[in-house]
Amino acid sequence: MSSSNIVLGKNQYGKAENRVVKITRDTDRHEIEDLNVTSQLRGDLTAAHIDGDNAHVVPTDTQKNTVFAFARDGIGSPEEFLIRLANHFTGEFEWITGGRWEAEQYAWERIIANGEEHNHSFVRKGQEVRNSVVTKDGDNIYVISGLNDLTVLKSTQSGFVGYPKDKYTTLQETTDRILATEVSARWRYNNEAVANGSIDFNAVYADVKALLLEGFSEEYSYALQQTLFQMAQKVFNAHPEIDELRFSTPNKHHFVVDLTPFGLDNPGEVFFAADRPYGLIEANFERETISDPGNSWDGIVGFC
Amino acid sequence: MSSSNIVLGKNQYGKAENRVVKITRDTDRHEIEDLNVTSQLRGDLTAAHIDGDNAHVVPTDTQKNTVFAFARDGIGSPEEFLIRLANHFTGEFEWITGGRWEAEQYAWERIIANGEEHNHSFVRKGQEVRNSVVTKDGDNIYVISGLNDLTVLKSTQSGFVGYPKDKYTTLQETTDRILATEVSARWRYNNEAVANGSIDFNAVYADVKALLLEGFSEEYSYALQQTLFQMAQKVFNAHPEIDELRFSTPNKHHFVVDLTPFGLDNPGEVFFAADRPYGLIEANFERETISDPGNSWDGIVGFC
Amino acid sequence: MSSSNIVLGKNQYGKAENRVVKITRDTDRHEIEDLNVTSQLRGDLTAAHIDGDNAHVVPTDTQKNTVFAFARDGIGSPEEFLIRLANHFTGEFEWITGGRWEAEQYAWERIIANGEEHNHSFVRKGQEVRNSVVTKDGDNIYVISGLNDLTVLKSTQSGFVGYPKDKYTTLQETTDRILATEVSARWRYNNEAVANGSIDFNAVYADVKALLLEGFSEEYSYALQQTLFQMAQKVFNAHPEIDELRFSTPNKHHFVVDLTPFGLDNPGEVFFAADRPYGLIEANFERETISDPGNSWDGIVGFC
Amino acid sequence: MSSSNIVLGKNQYGKAENRVVKITRDTDRHEIEDLNVTSQLRGDLTAAHIDGDNAHVVPTDTQKNTVFAFARDGIGSPEEFLIRLANHFTGEFEWITGGRWEAEQYAWERIIANGEEHNHSFVRKGQEVRNSVVTKDGDNIYVISGLNDLTVLKSTQSGFVGYPKDKYTTLQETTDRILATEVSARWRYNNEAVANGSIDFNAVYADVKALLLEGFSEEYSYALQQTLFQMAQKVFNAHPEIDELRFSTPNKHHFVVDLTPFGLDNPGEVFFAADRPYGLIEANFERETISDPGNSWDGIVGFC
Repeated sequence: MSSSNIVLGKNQYGKAENRVVKITRDTDRHEIEDLNVTSQLRGDLTAAHIDGDNAHVVPTDTQKNTVFAFARDGIGSPEEFLIRLANHFTGEFEWITGGRWEAEQYAWERIIANGEEHNHSFVRKGQEVRNSVVTKDGDNIYVISGLNDLTVLKSTQSGFVGYPKDKYTTLQETTDRILATEVSARWRYNNEAVANGSIDFNAVYADVKALLLEGFSEEYSYALQQTLFQMAQKVFNAHPEIDELRFSTPNKHHFVVDLTPFGLDNPGEVFFAADRPYGLIEANFERETISDPGNSWDGIVGFC
Repeated sequence: MSSSNIVLGKNQYGKAENRVVKITRDTDRHEIEDLNVTSQLRGDLTAAHIDGDNAHVVPTDTQKNTVFAFARDGIGSPEEFLIRLANHFTGEFEWITGGRWEAEQYAWERIIANGEEHNHSFVRKGQEVRNSVVTKDGDNIYVISGLNDLTVLKSTQSGFVGYPKDKYTTLQETTDRILATEVSARWRYNNEAVANGSIDFNAVYADVKALLLEGFSEEYSYALQQTLFQMAQKVFNAHPEIDELRFSTPNKHHFVVDLTPFGLDNPGEVFFAADRPYGLIEANFERETISDPGNSWDGIVGFC
Repeated sequence: MSSSNIVLGKNQYGKAENRVVKITRDTDRHEIEDLNVTSQLRGDLTAAHIDGDNAHVVPTDTQKNTVFAFARDGIGSPEEFLIRLANHFTGEFEWITGGRWEAEQYAWERIIANGEEHNHSFVRKGQEVRNSVVTKDGDNIYVISGLNDLTVLKSTQSGFVGYPKDKYTTLQETTDRILATEVSARWRYNNEAVANGSIDFNAVYADVKALLLEGFSEEYSYALQQTLFQMAQKVFNAHPEIDELRFSTPNKHHFVVDLTPFGLDNPGEVFFAADRPYGLIEANFERETISDPGNSWDGIVGFC
Repeated sequence: MSSSNIVLGKNQYGKAENRVVKITRDTDRHEIEDLNVTSQLRGDLTAAHIDGDNAHVVPTDTQKNTVFAFARDGIGSPEEFLIRLANHFTGEFEWITGGRWEAEQYAWERIIANGEEHNHSFVRKGQEVRNSVVTKDGDNIYVISGLNDLTVLKSTQSGFVGYPKDKYTTLQETTDRILATEVSARWRYNNEAVANGSIDFNAVYADVKALLLEGFSEEYSYALQQTLFQMAQKVFNAHPEIDELRFSTPNKHHFVVDLTPFGLDNPGEVFFAADRPYGLIEANFERETISDPGNSWDGIVGFC
């Protein structure tokens, strides 16, 4: 049996989901950045938990104020914004030795009015949600970027055969099915590339998204697992500054509806899109040699 | 006081949210239609409720089967598909005198791979959700189309002044604020235009969406109410086949953050996007003379 | 074809989802009331929509302030609180001739600590959500109460037989199935009973909920439609102050899993609880003679 | 820079959210167990990802079938049910060396009809959701239990003072505020206690929930962090079979509404319950000496 003394383990605290909208209005052509920022601090917080002594508890309200105040100087990219916050909090309070800063970003596009892009009217794009996590641990800083909710489907060039059968197997093999998933992906940047400031985070994001889509499309899929590897290859080949890439992808089943009771055939035309249960495929890919991930993956989807 | 005898009032029943995905694969360039269809029947159903006699209760399971079987012949447009279902059920069962058929449709776009639109790989567009409701009541048929979740924002050219003040008023007037909303709109087609089959529902849908965006963008907004009217005018002017247009639009508040405690100004640059409470503006517009709406608006958003 | 002049139809506006928590702390034994209040005004608002003239637009912010200020005097019951708001707004602004006030209420129960109910610590009950809508239209006032999300299930004493079959019917008859639904119910009080102030809204609410549960349980169910009638009878028989009762109830399918491929029987023991599609049964019941409902049901679930 | 060869890292796959409802009907007094089960397998799956060779990919459909087939013998407790699944899959397929099995469980209570608990009619309790995760890694088996969505509030005996101030601090100290949170908790059982089968998982669950509530209630709260420690102490003191306890708890802000503009005081009576942003406090507690956690915490809420 275990000892009876209780100790505080890992912990963090902060203000979650600060909804910051930044309008840049230097010219008549406004720009919009729309983020959901979470700030969480780590450090010497034992007295707060054990004794109710708040001398080290930078209020979550202060963290919120700081997020909005820092936005006054612009966002730029969520990764750069979070790094600024990380450096601020660990520099300002000596007992704060690290933390975790996360942001979702929502894309907007200009409304087309009278055939032209409007200067200050926008419609939310509504496709995937961009995501960034910056972790600071002492002097180390880690950057993970990613996306959620990118829903893709291929209507052919997908099958599933050659799997093991046992007494609980009823699934029939097929060489032509719909493959659909909602991609959650996270990629971690090489620490050295982060440190030397050489990464254009917005440009890499746009390119990785495009490569994931292309990788999903090109080849026949023998299983979602194998398609994820093809998507990963695209990204690693084009982006040496990325060390790791993780996926969490539901297999969103589309069942061919049996129309024979109604005197109809169904050669892959009519499908029932099911909700639950669904397949769930999680796979991590990485280069053979990578920079130290530290604790950067703690609490991130796409783990095992 | 009221009488003690209990009677059955209005009622309907059916199968909700049949998730139909139709792939058209006549050529290598597949097409996808992705719908969520609800079928509900009305008619002489008193015995079912009062006596537990199901002789008139066409099973909801049968309604589901019919939806999938009808999809085998193609969808075309949600409106046309629902009209087919309406005519089928009221024709097949003499005691079914009407009903309500509704569909959401989700838009997909082709993935760009290697610079070209892919033949059979798609990514969900993710912007607004298209919506259609067909109501049949005896020989009358009504068609209402619409959209949900079209999130728009103008970063200037919006104000709110000249409102009445009382002892509970603390709001300050402003001539420059963010105006943001998530448009839910429904428009009802003229019955005659529906009957003579002259409407290209897909084309009208695309155009109405574009006009709503344009109407939101063009003019200075004195209040969301007035902007809705400008959006409505665009639609009515371009589409004589539309008799009515209804809106339910939250005023999604974006508050200018007070940065003065931190020694910063904030000339409309940094906003806090609030969740609740929110303004809620609902307004119906119609032509001076319209075709009979019957019971077509029952249970539809944008009512008062 | 219709005329080209556009007119404003029905409309309303206000502040939605004001989350008010009221603590009554006259004694050490605190009481909690937790509401989500929506206020919407109706009246002469044509100039606001057509001309951008806000002279009649009582700000939604003022409506919010009023909700919180009125809570200072206590809530009592959501129905009484909404009636106070209705009378205030229509009395304060002469061009406001009516409106709609709605509240959800969330139930809390006292935490049991050391064997006793705690004085000021609560845990949210989490079962159904209570709902109230008060509509004012000129001098008329209407009160509708209800509940959402009351999930119930009977594991036997339910069947479905005797229904019509056609070429799309594949459903097998059964005399023993699971019946499960998530009850949304709304009942309208007799106008005279509302006017003379004789209704104890909290007590009636508790009793109607208990009767709905009892009515669901007692008898064999030939279909959900018939069970709804049995539930309605319980309520009407016990509550002469109620004129109408409406239901919107999904039939949450629980399918018996076929275990024969695995050499197992399944005598109604193992079920798959499906998400979509689901049955959807909507039925209204009313006394033979009822007080005038006016526009009180506009925009309420359980319509047809 | 990193190497260019890509390797497969950690991975798992399976069928998520199998909604199993088990009715035990040995007597007229039925019992109901309602679970949402996820099964995920780990092992030698490199060929599946890299080569599209599915010889090791036990279909997710087979995992689903197994879940339903195993339910035929009863559930008992979610922890025991998941352990059975874990032992089955790792015993049946030699290349499956481990995995992760998770279940949510939803509580139901008997409907009271005519003053008595009904034999086969139930209403969903709707309070917290119970959660279990069983991880198998070679011969090691780990069990974590927990709960989500237990919403609690204390209307007094909570304050927040003595925190550090900087230029971004605007928060005022208070010695009397509302403290509210939605508890997510997970506790890991001692491996030896799991192995010797001595744990009554259902009984421990009920008691831990009661102790968490009691621990939240009893003492003055100097901060949510400190209250979590008090809750943890209750659990550790009563349950030697528990080695670790983790929390993820939003601080659901209830702001005192300033009613002075309306000539009213507000001595802690009227609050605005805010949505976002919210505080987020995550803290892990453990005994000084604990059994090896292995990889059991991967992907679980309440991490840092």
